[in-house]
Amino acid sequence: MTGRTRRPPTGAAVLQPHITSAITEAVLDELAERGYGRLSMEGVARRAGVGKSALYRRWPCKQDMVLAVLSQMSVPLAEFPDTGSLRGDLIAGLGAVHDWLTHPRFVLILPDLTAEAARNPALAEAIQATIGTPRRQLASAALHRAVERGELPAGLNLELALDLIAAPIHWRLNVRRAPIEPGYLEALADHLMRALGATERH
Amino acid sequence: MTGRTRRPPTGAAVLQPHITSAITEAVLDELAERGYGRLSMEGVARRAGVGKSALYRRWPCKQDMVLAVLSQMSVPLAEFPDTGSLRGDLIAGLGAVHDWLTHPRFVLILPDLTAEAARNPALAEAIQATIGTPRRQLASAALHRAVERGELPAGLNLELALDLIAAPIHWRLNVRRAPIEPGYLEALADHLMRALGATERH
Repeated sequence: MTGRTRRPPTGAAVLQPHITSAITEAVLDELAERGYGRLSMEGVARRAGVGKSALYRRWPCKQDMVLAVLSQMSVPLAEFPDTGSLRGDLIAGLGAVHDWLTHPRFVLILPDLTAEAARNPALAEAIQATIGTPRRQLASAALHRAVERGELPAGLNLELALDLIAAPIHWRLNVRRAPIEPGYLEALADHLMRALGATERH
Repeated sequence: MTGRTRRPPTGAAVLQPHITSAITEAVLDELAERGYGRLSMEGVARRAGVGKSALYRRWPCKQDMVLAVLSQMSVPLAEFPDTGSLRGDLIAGLGAVHDWLTHPRFVLILPDLTAEAARNPALAEAIQATIGTPRRQLASAALHRAVERGELPAGLNLELALDLIAAPIHWRLNVRRAPIEPGYLEALADHLMRALGATERH
């Protein structure tokens, strides 16, 4: 990418970022167009304009490659910013769930991956380990902050709270394929505040 | 199915229930094993042990056949019984959503159909018309009863309420592939009562 390149130290595995980036784009394109089941290392390599060895240098198999790419895209989008109030955090966090689910290509990728996981328990487990669990940990942090601020009860049902945050947006967009109308996320935040027993703050 | 059968009136389209039933089972088996995309009228006819004409006598095309079978299975399961209280109705209704989503074969069928619908807007629309909307109308009736009893505010956000009822169970079972632990549905009902601003009844 630069005019002046140094020779890599002999024997070191040097992964060039622009190649990783081309592979990442090719993985997302192939997932969106062909789906997980029909995606192949060959197809990704061809699309990225690299050799298959460039893929295997980074990941041992298709599942690891796909989940590394999807995790890298998905987990940072689950950052709940600390806005100083639960309602603020929820609205920001719900907006981030919405942006994740409507991310170009991901609108096709997630339903396909969910169907694939229903038939492939090892894949389902790996998806949770690389995407689901890290995303839930980020949302948990926001809820814990609210407990510390006294906005949420200490006996919070965390499992259910996390389901309630992500589920309605996914249900609406991916299962019902209905639009998220203006005001929906704010109304959802207010319903969640009540559901979780949040202290009213005005 | 009986020993004494009458000749059907000439010219009338007589659909024999045991054939319809064999086709229904074959459609569900093919959907679960092969998925919507690879299901064919030929495959269903072969599996049901009937001629293709028996299928086309009932439905003009694959999409209509699949949705008729899935609607017939799905819509009655969304009956919210009138238990006399919102909490009772919610717990029964959430149990019915759970039973629907964990119905044998349907655990494979719904994720596949959702992925298919993401790529096929006409199918997505037909799914909503034959399954989603009728199911929501049944749940709406339970919420309207609660408004009439004074348990829910008249200004209820019905759209959001319906999403909140179905979404967490689907998210947990089909996306996270996590178990519904004992007590989860009751806790969800209590969270929904608070979310919807239900009047406390003891």
